[in-house]
Order: sequence, then structure tokens, then C-alpha cells
Amino acid sequence: MNKLSEHTVFGVVGGDLRQAALANFLLRQGYEVHAFFLDQQPLLDRQYISSDPAGLGCCDVVVFPLPVSDENGALNAPLYSGSIPLSDCLNCCRSDAFLLGGKISDRDRLTAQEAGHRMSDYLTREEMAVLNAVPTAEGAVGIALSERASTLWESHCLITGFGRCGKALALLLKGFGAHVTVAARSAGELAFARTLGLNTISLSKVDSILPEQEIIFNTIPSPVLGEKSLQLVAEDCLLIDLASRPGGIDFAAAGQLGRKTIWALSLPGKVSPITAGNIICDTVINMITERGDLIENN
Amino acid sequence: MNKLSEHTVFGVVGGDLRQAALANFLLRQGYEVHAFFLDQQPLLDRQYISSDPAGLGCCDVVVFPLPVSDENGALNAPLYSGSIPLSDCLNCCRSDAFLLGGKISDRDRLTAQEAGHRMSDYLTREEMAVLNAVPTAEGAVGIALSERASTLWESHCLITGFGRCGKALALLLKGFGAHVTVAARSAGELAFARTLGLNTISLSKVDSILPEQEIIFNTIPSPVLGEKSLQLVAEDCLLIDLASRPGGIDFAAAGQLGRKTIWALSLPGKVSPITAGNIICDTVINMITERGDLIENN
Amino acid sequence: MNKLSEHTVFGVVGGDLRQAALANFLLRQGYEVHAFFLDQQPLLDRQYISSDPAGLGCCDVVVFPLPVSDENGALNAPLYSGSIPLSDCLNCCRSDAFLLGGKISDRDRLTAQEAGHRMSDYLTREEMAVLNAVPTAEGAVGIALSERASTLWESHCLITGFGRCGKALALLLKGFGAHVTVAARSAGELAFARTLGLNTISLSKVDSILPEQEIIFNTIPSPVLGEKSLQLVAEDCLLIDLASRPGGIDFAAAGQLGRKTIWALSLPGKVSPITAGNIICDTVINMITERGDLIENN
Amino acid sequence: MNKLSEHTVFGVVGGDLRQAALANFLLRQGYEVHAFFLDQQPLLDRQYISSDPAGLGCCDVVVFPLPVSDENGALNAPLYSGSIPLSDCLNCCRSDAFLLGGKISDRDRLTAQEAGHRMSDYLTREEMAVLNAVPTAEGAVGIALSERASTLWESHCLITGFGRCGKALALLLKGFGAHVTVAARSAGELAFARTLGLNTISLSKVDSILPEQEIIFNTIPSPVLGEKSLQLVAEDCLLIDLASRPGGIDFAAAGQLGRKTIWALSLPGKVSPITAGNIICDTVINMITERGDLIENN
Repeated sequence: MNKLSEHTVFGVVGGDLRQAALANFLLRQGYEVHAFFLDQQPLLDRQYISSDPAGLGCCDVVVFPLPVSDENGALNAPLYSGSIPLSDCLNCCRSDAFLLGGKISDRDRLTAQEAGHRMSDYLTREEMAVLNAVPTAEGAVGIALSERASTLWESHCLITGFGRCGKALALLLKGFGAHVTVAARSAGELAFARTLGLNTISLSKVDSILPEQEIIFNTIPSPVLGEKSLQLVAEDCLLIDLASRPGGIDFAAAGQLGRKTIWALSLPGKVSPITAGNIICDTVINMITERGDLIENN
Repeated sequence: MNKLSEHTVFGVVGGDLRQAALANFLLRQGYEVHAFFLDQQPLLDRQYISSDPAGLGCCDVVVFPLPVSDENGALNAPLYSGSIPLSDCLNCCRSDAFLLGGKISDRDRLTAQEAGHRMSDYLTREEMAVLNAVPTAEGAVGIALSERASTLWESHCLITGFGRCGKALALLLKGFGAHVTVAARSAGELAFARTLGLNTISLSKVDSILPEQEIIFNTIPSPVLGEKSLQLVAEDCLLIDLASRPGGIDFAAAGQLGRKTIWALSLPGKVSPITAGNIICDTVINMITERGDLIENN
Repeated sequence: MNKLSEHTVFGVVGGDLRQAALANFLLRQGYEVHAFFLDQQPLLDRQYISSDPAGLGCCDVVVFPLPVSDENGALNAPLYSGSIPLSDCLNCCRSDAFLLGGKISDRDRLTAQEAGHRMSDYLTREEMAVLNAVPTAEGAVGIALSERASTLWESHCLITGFGRCGKALALLLKGFGAHVTVAARSAGELAFARTLGLNTISLSKVDSILPEQEIIFNTIPSPVLGEKSLQLVAEDCLLIDLASRPGGIDFAAAGQLGRKTIWALSLPGKVSPITAGNIICDTVINMITERGDLIENN
Repeated sequence: MNKLSEHTVFGVVGGDLRQAALANFLLRQGYEVHAFFLDQQPLLDRQYISSDPAGLGCCDVVVFPLPVSDENGALNAPLYSGSIPLSDCLNCCRSDAFLLGGKISDRDRLTAQEAGHRMSDYLTREEMAVLNAVPTAEGAVGIALSERASTLWESHCLITGFGRCGKALALLLKGFGAHVTVAARSAGELAFARTLGLNTISLSKVDSILPEQEIIFNTIPSPVLGEKSLQLVAEDCLLIDLASRPGGIDFAAAGQLGRKTIWALSLPGKVSPITAGNIICDTVINMITERGDLIENN
């Protein structure tokens, strides 16, 4: 396969609603799409779905799910009634096909290699991470709205960390009229938060403002709020940890102190699977385009 | 009672969590507060609560709930295990006390009159309506977030009506990065929406843009979206009616067409009772202040 | 003339760049347009301009300038080398033509009546006032940017009055990251400002926050900041009065105290004449449409 | 000098209004400050200013201006009536003083070294660059407001480049209600712009949208808009180049085509010198604090 064109044929393999949404977006953009192992989903018409991997042989681009496989090396396919080894799918792909997957494990890479393929990971792409911050922030706001008896408007919110999720969340909360404070380490990030009209504090001094916070959102995937800090948090404060393992809040301590704490992981796929599928679609198309450009330049 | 001072004594009678929150805010501002018929609530310390209306005799200001009474003339007191006639409360109030209530019915007024009192309605105040638009808008957004599998970001939202709720909702959705269109009748309101960077359309032409909408929020309490219009709405569009009876969406027709429709009434008390109590508190204090000013001027 | 249609012929008479811009917008929308007494302007092609009022006889709609005439009863026509009585223009208009003008004086009305015409004032329209608040706010911001040596970002700005201009200006300044406080009389307006995330204060208490303000924008056309208040204002504070006569700032006192004060009147026509013309165009089209509707309903 | 404390003594040497503002901020924060070669400025009280470099001997921290020296090796001191070699100042500084300057040249470094000093550059700090983007964006908006006859509201604005200045400018223009499009190279940056609700286009395709733009702001310091592109730009489009040398717009071609082009360099110091001085102050204090931390940790 050289370059993305109107004749590019896509295979979409396994996964959850995101993959179905991805297939749907590709169809709407006019591409020929074959979906595999996606039987129990409500978005795609029956005619596009198959459970026979042999059909992968006609696909120029094959998109594997996020994650690609389960712990047993089977294709990650929660919407398929059966189970199929990842290797069975890979063996059906053409040798010149462009294979993509999300959160590709070492074992996945090895399996692909054994089948004579290389697989590119869309989860490592910057635009994917940036765009996924939006459903993550919306999911966090949704939790805050449903768990509290007060408005976000005029509430005191603290966000620890100011990476992609912190930025998206801060701007969203500001749109609600919340009093938002950003705690971060880097002077540059704090300065950027300040230019956005947010209150800022060095992460090393965050304890001093914990007592007046009503909601604390953590986005840093390393210990930030330990027992000593949690003791300063108000009784009715809601704590939401958005950081991937190990998270940044000491959940055991929070539990003992009776602080309401929610660990919200992988929000895009849970709260906005259709948008999450759209984001994968955009990222995959960028990857194909850049690859095409590279080939063209050769 | 002449004017609001640090010595003003408040009585807070019946009602739901909003009344408890109101009592709480008054306490925090340093006033002496007596709460009545609010036994089963988690916000107030036991010492402030009584079930003996005789205590109303020491109160300069008495705040009745929203609504004041139930259909049988009993005080609206869902957090009280028993039942007490409104008249019993009124008879205990001092003749110079300032009595306030929400959504006062004709019967309530008559009952008050028979007890030698007049009662002022805080629900008719402009600032109460303006501030209540915020929890209403947050509640509507909360519904949209929990009912859909896509982000509000980049979604196409239509708001019919541009009164207080329409304005609050439009600005909130814009903060999410939604594509917001406002449909209204008045050229002045449409112009104001346009100055806020919103798309606008005359309500009479709204049918032309229904097919591409993903969420429709109605805020007009009279028929707006009838069967003919609803047929133009996309199958997976979410319809949320925020308008009080009779609402603006033909629910029967929407049901027959299989359009998902949610009638969300009285959101402030349901989704943000603490903020709603805060808003009543601010409104009541404004009313006392203005009354005091009047008296002072005499 | 019954109703706006593609065949409607427009006459645009006299005025400044706004009228030329208005003629231009009408042309771009596909209408036949004749412009009169607008010789010295850079926007319109020569072929559309005439100095012979007889051409008004073919116009279905005739738009007079803002204001319509000068103190001598001559057409307000600063871009015309000569002078022409308003009556000469009116006498050339068809009896069934729709005549509009801005800020129509009693004398203008009389002159029109003598020529057998009625004239409708677009300046009294709500959408015109709402839309004009935008160039007014931009003009005020432009002044603040050019007169000061500090950013608007993180500056302390006070806006007295929260009508259309106050609202537009407050939102604009908030977009800059300024600390904006709104001072107004009405509890409802203050509540609306609060829902927008602005700081608020009752106008009666504004003196208490004057010392920390860096820019004060007045939008109230009656005495607001007298000598006593101005003494509280910081030495390097910039005062901008946007209110029409008599304004709200005591300019004499401000001058004696050495406070820098700018009275910025009629900003739309001065700083954004093209947009101002566009706004008149939209308003005029609304007025024709509503009139057509009325006629149709008869 | 070990660490920032209330007893830290600052020397502020030469420069323009920014240095005077910097000295002023330090004074307001309670530090002892000595200013040198800043005679003709309106912000500082006479008592703090000296023209004798010997006074530098008592300073723990010495802040040199931006840039540090002129082409002849003299201190950059436009507010001083005379001229003084940089080396004369350096020779008076204590050997344990912390010396800072902006845009330190190789020659400045050598001069410092010869005097036994090292000098740290505050212009290379991330927070300085981030914060300076604000006055730059405000300056650009100020130019657009004063050069055009239309509002920014509803105007079509293109920003090429989405670094710090592009971001600040895009958000500011969006606050005005402009239709903002960002053109950039990186898929990640474009995705971030999209999450902010901005229109986006790959820089390689920017020509396709040039005709409808009313203002083009370039922030990329390398050729972006050459003759071929400029021919696509509308006649009345305003072009503002914010990029440092060589800029991104072909000025010669723009001139020949009659396109109005403004090259706006070093805006912070020109339009908001007081804020620019504040930013240097914050940056310098961060640098001292970090240095102190380092020393403390040893």
C-alpha cells in the first residue's frame, strides 16, 4: 500500500464500541470497510461484519483494537461471542498491508513479527493523547456533576498536574465559572496556566490550599496526595483521580479518613466511545498520510 | 423588625435539603437560626432543629419552603416524619416578623391572612430566577453527558428559547466547544446571542436545521417541537425539555417516533440542592435589605 | 412595496462610511442599490453613486443616514461636496416607498410628513442597540490598550452599569484575563453578572473598591463618579466614559485631580464604521421583513 | 548569596521602562533595591536611583537589562544621559552576587568572565517566554483594532504557527468572537487547537483558505507567506508579522501587491513595558529561588 486514496480498503478488527464507531466514520468518509469480530454492536449494518479472518486479505490498512489482545494472546474482542488468537488474524493480513493497533504489548509485537508483520501504535501519537484529553475532561466533569449536591459554578476546584488532561479540565471548569487552581511543578506550565486566567500554586506548596477545596482532580501518575495532605482536605471534598496506575492519591488513607475518592480510569472509551473511535480514526488517517508522504518522498 | 442586622433571628421552616442548606448558610454568616421540621437532614447540627412551632415566636424573619404547602394545606416538610398544618406555624409567628415563602399559592396567602400575616414570595424575584438558571443549565449538561456516547465537544446543539436558562446553557455548552445554535423569536435576543458568538436562527425557521442536531434543549414553555418537526430530527438525537408545564416538545409524538426525550423539571432542587439553598439565602437577604431600606427611608 | 424580495430596489442616501458600507452589503446580497450624495468614499464603485435625487423615484426602500439631517435641515452628507435640503430628497421618494433613518429628529419627522411620508427609526431597534454594543466595547478596549503601559491581562477593571455595553465590555475584558468587577443597581443585573463569573458590587457601595482599580469604564448616562469618589481613585487609573450626555464622570473634578479621563462617544461609527454599516443593514432588513409580515397577515 | 530572603538586596542596572518597573515591583514586595543609570523614568522615586556603580557592591542580586549592552559594549541604558562600559558595572559587583541579564551576547559573557563573573539569562526561561506571549498578543490585537474599520468580532482571522504567541493570540481573538483558524505543521499542535474550539488547517494547505481571511497574523520566524500565497490574499486584508527576524511574510512582495503589512517586533517592551518588567521580576525571583534550592540541597 502506498498512500491513502479513495480506493483504500480498511479492515477493522475486534475491540469495543470504539472500533465500531471507527468503522462507521471510515464508511461515512467513503472508504470500503470490512469489520471483523464486532457482532454485538448497534452502530454498523450487518453487511459490513464478518467472523472470517480470511477477509482481511483484501485490506490495505488493518486497525487492531486498544488494547490489541488479552492476557492469553487472544484478540481483544468483547463484542464477539467467541475467541480467536491474534495470530490467526495476523496470518490473514497481506504482507504489504499497514497494520495499526493501540497499546501494543511486547507479546503482540512478537506475534506480529512471527507472522511477518510490523504493527504501528496509534496510542503513542501526540494528537491522540491531546484529543483524548477532551473526553477525559468531560468524563471527570460528569462525575463531579453527578456526585455532588452543589454546582461547579463558584466551587473551588484544584487540579494537580497541568499536562494535556489538566489543561482540558481546567478550561472546562473555568467555563462553568468554577474557581480553578492549578498545582504543578514546572514554572513554565504554571506560567501558561496563569496566562489562561487560572490560579496557580507550586505543587510543593499545595498543602496550604487544600482545606478550602471542594473538588480535587489529580492528573499526576505518581504519589501526590498522601495521608498527611489528605488530612487537610475538607470532609465533604470530592477527590477524583484521573491518573493511570499507580494514581496520585493514597486511596487507602483517603478511605480511612472517610474522604470520597473516585479513581476514574480510561474515561474516553467508557463515557464517549463514539468520540474515542472518531479520535482513533483521525489519528490512523494521519498516520497513513504521513507514511504515504514518506513513501512518496522516497 | 426594622432592618437586617447582626442580631436578626431567622426561622427556617420545613422544606427539603435546600432549606437545610439555607439555614446552614445563615449560620455561617453569623446569624442566630432556628430550624423547624427538618429532622432528617445531614447538614445541620441537631441543636438547631426543633419540631415545636412555638419557637417561631422569637424569629424576626421566617422563611417557608418552596412550595410552602402540599395539596392538603399541610406545611411542605418532606424531611419531617410527621405532618403539621401551615396555619399552626403561622399562628406562632410574631405579628412584626417578616415572612417569606416560595411559590406561595392563593390558599397559602389566605391562610397567612387569616393568621394576620402577609407573606413575600422569593420565587418571583429576578435574581432568584437568574441564579437558578445556573444549576438548571448544569443539570441539563449532566443529563447530556450521562445519556450520550459522544462528547459535547464538537457536538451540534440546538437551544430553543433564549431567556435566562437558554443563556446560561448556551454559554456552558460553548465552553465545552459544542456548535451551539440558538432559535428564538425576538430579533433583540437573537442579536444578543450573535454577540456572544453563537449561531442563531429565527424560531420560525428552526425546522431547516433540525436534521443535523445531536442534542436539542427546549426552554420555551409552549408548543415548539410538534410531530412535523420531530420527524425531521435525527434518530439518535437526544431531546431535553427544560420548560415548565406544558413543556415545548410533543412527548407523545416523540415517543411514537422513537426519539429519546427527557423532561427535566425543577433541576436546581434536584441536582444542586445546596446551591439552590444558597440562592434562596442570597435572595432572602436582598429582600430583607430592600425592605429595611424602605422602612429606614420612611 | 409589500415585502422584501430579490427585486427590492434600495436607495442609500447621504451619511458617512457607514452608509457606504450599508450600500456595499446590500449589493453583495444581490439587491439593486442606488447610492446618493456619497461621492467621497472608498468602498463603492462609482457606477452606483449619484447626486441627482430624482433617482430615488425607483427605490422601494430608502435608507437615510444617522443622524438624518444637520442643524440646518440639510441632509447629513459629510461625504458629499455640496449641500442638499432633506426635503429635496423626500420629495423624490415614491409615496409607497419604505423610508428609514437613524436618530430621526422632530423636525425630520415634520419634513417627512410635509412630503407625504412617514419615516421609521432604526436606532430605536433593540437588535441595533445590542449589536452596536460590540464595536463600542472593542473601541473602549482599543483605547485602554493604546493609553496604558500595562496589559489588560491581570489588570483590575471596574465597569459601572450593566446594560448592553456593560455586558459586551465585561465579557471582552474577561477574555483578556482581566479582573472585572461590575457595579450596578439592580439585583437581577448583578446576579446575571455573577452567573457570568464576574465580580459584582452594588453601585451604592462602589466607593469601597475604587482605590484598587486600574481602569474604570462608565456606561451609565447620569452622575456616577463625582468628586468625592474620584478622590479615591488611584493616580494612574485610566477613566473611560462611554455614556452619552451628560456622561457619568465629573470631568471637571477629574481634571482638577489630575485623573486621566477619556469621554468616548459614538464609538461604532468612529472605530468600526464598516461593521456599524453592516449592523444598520441587518436591522433595516429585519424591519422590512417584519413590515412585510404585517402586510401579509392583513 | 545563598537564597532569597527578606534581606536580599537587589541592584537594577540600566535598561528602559521595564527595568524601572522591575525595580518598582521589587520595592513593593519589600526588598531593598538600588537602581542605576535609570535617571529619566517616571516610576521610581529619586532616592532609589544612582549613577555611581560603586553602589553595586552591596547588592546580592544584580539584574542587567534586555539586551545587556549595545553594539559598542556600553551598558544598554537609554534612560541615562551618559554612557558607561558594561565592564565598569561588572567590576563593581561582588564576586558572590547573582548576576542576571536578558539576551546576553557572547561578548557580554566574555566581559563578565573577565570580571570574574557568570551571568544567567532570564530570556531563555520558559515562563518568561510564556508570559511575554500575553503582551505580544495584546499588542497585536491593539494594532488590528487601530488599523481596521471593522470589528474583530465576526472577522476571519488566520494565525500561522501555534507556539506560545499563537496560542495566546488565538484565545484572545476567540474572546472577541472572531472566526479563528490556526495553521500549523504539527498534528499534535493542530489537535490542541481543535480541542480549544479553533478551526485548524495544515500549514501545507493554508493557501486554500487565504482568500477569505481579513487579518493574518504570522508567528513563524521563517518564510511562510511568499509571493504566490500573498497573491491569494484579499486586497483589504491586514497582515501582521509577529515573528522575529527573518519574519515569515515576504514584505517586498506584499508591498508590491499593495497588501498592508505590519512587522510588529518586541511588542512587550513597547506596548506594555510595566507588565514586561513585572514578568522579568517574576522570572528573576524564580531563578533565585531555584538557585537557592540547589544550594540548600547541597
